Amino acid sequence: MLELSELRRKNLELAKKRFKESVNTDLLIINAINNFEELQKIINTLTKKLREWYSLYFPELDREVQDNEAFVRLLIKKNKKELLNELGLKESIGAELNKEDLEPIISLARLINNLIKEKHLLEEYLERTMRSYCPETSTISGALIGAKLLRGAGSLKKLAMMRSSTIQLLGAEKALFRHIRTGAKPPKYGYLMQHPLVQNAKKKDKGRVARALADKIFICARVDYFKGAPIAARLLDELEEKFKKKSSTE
Amino acid sequence: MLELSELRRKNLELAKKRFKESVNTDLLIINAINNFEELQKIINTLTKKLREWYSLYFPELDREVQDNEAFVRLLIKKNKKELLNELGLKESIGAELNKEDLEPIISLARLINNLIKEKHLLEEYLERTMRSYCPETSTISGALIGAKLLRGAGSLKKLAMMRSSTIQLLGAEKALFRHIRTGAKPPKYGYLMQHPLVQNAKKKDKGRVARALADKIFICARVDYFKGAPIAARLLDELEEKFKKKSSTE
Repeated sequence: MLELSELRRKNLELAKKRFKESVNTDLLIINAINNFEELQKIINTLTKKLREWYSLYFPELDREVQDNEAFVRLLIKKNKKELLNELGLKESIGAELNKEDLEPIISLARLINNLIKEKHLLEEYLERTMRSYCPETSTISGALIGAKLLRGAGSLKKLAMMRSSTIQLLGAEKALFRHIRTGAKPPKYGYLMQHPLVQNAKKKDKGRVARALADKIFICARVDYFKGAPIAARLLDELEEKFKKKSSTE
Repeated sequence: MLELSELRRKNLELAKKRFKESVNTDLLIINAINNFEELQKIINTLTKKLREWYSLYFPELDREVQDNEAFVRLLIKKNKKELLNELGLKESIGAELNKEDLEPIISLARLINNLIKEKHLLEEYLERTMRSYCPETSTISGALIGAKLLRGAGSLKKLAMMRSSTIQLLGAEKALFRHIRTGAKPPKYGYLMQHPLVQNAKKKDKGRVARALADKIFICARVDYFKGAPIAARLLDELEEKFKKKSSTE
């Protein structure tokens, strides 16, 4: 018979082993996509503040350059004079700031630029990891949407067990509960809204496209989980063919 | 008589001049303190996510190191083995991650470290700017609280016109409206809560200390705005003396 302390030691070791094994690619992907979204939010918030602050100095640039990443890059690379030239303006109605007051503004722009770089690195990591962990799903849905679906389900295993109608609505939980509670219109798509096929569809077709896409993702997630033969590229072609034809003949 | 176009040109020039002049130190300070607070929030959010993510790999560190800045620095400087040694642990129950999966986590830590540096730079800028723009107010309230009060008032001019009871409650607007609407307890302090004198006071004294402090800030803001003789250092000494005595004799 084992000693009690011996039993305890073995038990503890087993628990430790279980924990180690429970950390898997699913969790790594979920953490990465969470941080990716957080960075996106932060970049937007900070750029809004940067635009406000910089506009004390040079309000014309805020209006002329809508794209956030371009705005940040311009601020870092060029001074007011160069930017005025580029915009074809003779002067700005903004205040003259001395170096001391301008420095923290440019410094914020540099920081945002680093955040943008970090976001791109994380996106690359997600692409690589999704490509090797669930290649089929990421082929049909794209790595970012795939990662969000995986997070919504909890793991690849759970995603592979989901019905396609559930997959279609992952990411639309709020709207779904509002529908159940108040009888508001039911949602037609969640994360799939961001997919090029859905984005390029006409408003009235979006629901149908999302359903068809969810059907294919349903298949691909199972192929990924059960290590079946690749099929995603063909399914995507079919979808593109189907909905391209639709919109060109209508 | 002036030509119409001439009149228009002059008018436009005047408007531009007005805008240029309206950009002042108040606005620079308000933008800087807004960004300072935003960075604080972001650093907290991201560090929370970093702790979660890193805990897949080494959960023990999260428990052992409570301080966020220290946690981030440790992650960047030392590897798991060194950290285990430092904590006096033989092994971690966290999973082994390969380099590819660990890289984005450490990269996030580096990013947070940059955010922390940026926050400190901004704090230094605020200190310098407040010190030269309203030296009296920042002596008595500290640069950060001073900047928040200035933002709450809208400008140094407006702060100098405020009653001390209003200054006392700047930053507690939510609680104040709740008090008016629902009859909940009225707030006793807003931004002043963060002042060392209020923080070090006993719970039941905090309101009184905040009121006394607001009285002195009221004086200092006027001295700053009307360029009077320095008085803040003496007032602060008085306050410290008064409330130190209080708490030591009680």
